[in-house]
Amino acid sequence: MDRQIISNSFKSIQDNISSKLSIISSQDYQEDKWVYDSGSGGGITRIFSDGDIEKAGVNFSSITGKLSDDISSKVIGKGKDFYATGVSVVIHPKNPFVPTMHMNIRYLERNNQKWFGGGIDLTPYYISKNDIIDYHLKLKSLCDRYDFVNYKNFKDSCDKYFFIKHRNETRGVGGIFFDNLESNLDQTFKFVTENGKTFLDIFLPLFNNFNKKNYTNKHREFQLYRRGRYVEFNLVYDRGTLFGLETNGRIESILMSLPPYSSWKYNWKPELNSEEAKLYEFLKPTEWINFDE
Amino acid sequence: MDRQIISNSFKSIQDNISSKLSIISSQDYQEDKWVYDSGSGGGITRIFSDGDIEKAGVNFSSITGKLSDDISSKVIGKGKDFYATGVSVVIHPKNPFVPTMHMNIRYLERNNQKWFGGGIDLTPYYISKNDIIDYHLKLKSLCDRYDFVNYKNFKDSCDKYFFIKHRNETRGVGGIFFDNLESNLDQTFKFVTENGKTFLDIFLPLFNNFNKKNYTNKHREFQLYRRGRYVEFNLVYDRGTLFGLETNGRIESILMSLPPYSSWKYNWKPELNSEEAKLYEFLKPTEWINFDE
Repeated sequence: MDRQIISNSFKSIQDNISSKLSIISSQDYQEDKWVYDSGSGGGITRIFSDGDIEKAGVNFSSITGKLSDDISSKVIGKGKDFYATGVSVVIHPKNPFVPTMHMNIRYLERNNQKWFGGGIDLTPYYISKNDIIDYHLKLKSLCDRYDFVNYKNFKDSCDKYFFIKHRNETRGVGGIFFDNLESNLDQTFKFVTENGKTFLDIFLPLFNNFNKKNYTNKHREFQLYRRGRYVEFNLVYDRGTLFGLETNGRIESILMSLPPYSSWKYNWKPELNSEEAKLYEFLKPTEWINFDE
Repeated sequence: MDRQIISNSFKSIQDNISSKLSIISSQDYQEDKWVYDSGSGGGITRIFSDGDIEKAGVNFSSITGKLSDDISSKVIGKGKDFYATGVSVVIHPKNPFVPTMHMNIRYLERNNQKWFGGGIDLTPYYISKNDIIDYHLKLKSLCDRYDFVNYKNFKDSCDKYFFIKHRNETRGVGGIFFDNLESNLDQTFKFVTENGKTFLDIFLPLFNNFNKKNYTNKHREFQLYRRGRYVEFNLVYDRGTLFGLETNGRIESILMSLPPYSSWKYNWKPELNSEEAKLYEFLKPTEWINFDE
């Protein structure tokens, strides 16, 4: 695999996602180019704010550097030199009926070892079971186009990764999560870039269907409350975030994932049989697709 | 020292603080009694919300249990059995001109080893240098009444503890922080309980002076933004919080410290020479009291 080809492809995924988000929300984005001080290369951070997309970050980076001793043992492969390129997207829509959505794709090299990782996951506030199933069917369809990709395995990894232990809840309704994909690099590259396309195939309809839906203060308050869980996950458990904090990464790019507004209410519980209570039924590992049918 | 005497004294500090907060804010508090499932004893959590005190928690607990292997090595002393009693207070006022304030006092036993710990710290949004100095003079005056207590040492420990490494900022304008006070237990007990009194001597005037001050949406937005830092510190660094999460403590009592509303804005910086910029000058370890005078 050629770094430059992968990195160019990732860059164009950033371009495509940011331009599509710009069109659907009629918002411009703010762009920051940054350089990686501890090595070479850098990145481009694009931020949407204060519109129907209340906050979104679309990050691209391509960097080379040396792994610290601390990090060295947490990553596969040997040697200090590394190359990493990736795209990372987090969208926090304003309307509580549009889910928060996240995608990350990355390619790493450590000496002769080369691998891809990434994933897509969805964190709704109000959602129907049908929309969750539809979402998972799109992910399964993506996975099924590659004979070496097993949707079920990637889905289970996602449930396991995005789990808020102290709340005994998943962060959202799952998705796919994968790492250390080392074999079949050409095909894996195709699969990974197709994640960028599938991300939009999922998010754009959700946005278009629900962005204009009327909501009340109660809906908004629930959204802010649940965004608190997003913060709890990212600051307590998310490996990417903690990795970034430990390695003195660019703090504003790392924490762009945090929501624009969030709240914590003491011991808040949804009312029985309420719209809000319904979400909690979904926040556990679930077989969304019935494989027997 | 007798556990029961200390625990009763701590309980009355909780009563005193919650009743004073109730009077100044004209708010009732919500009370939850809880039992410590993994041992014996329990606690009382009191919560203020939705008033001039936008959110506050006043926690009391008195528990016995067994330390896990994981925690065992992080605490002084030997053996598994422990007893712990403490009071913990966090106040998030609604008015951005009233600082957020925190106090914790605790007493621990592990076999024959007995010690006190605790501290007071202040996290303002808008504050004058004079008010910070006044605050530190009150803490120094408290410390100076005990010949074994050194304000400067406790202040330095506080600066060191409440430091947000990834932001290169202190959480607030410091205070005092102490742990493992094992000698002179009778006098230390007096000092620790006096922290509860000093806490009110500091907070009540700040509340009375600034609670009615007019504020704009800009002030409120800055408060929410800075509260994001409070969340970052508590979830990424605070030993008490992480200890609680790791030991399956009562999650709502542990996370009562998190603010009612907070926000994150990408790469936000205060305008040069603005009221907001002034705060940033204070968010570093500072000798607030000129010892030469």
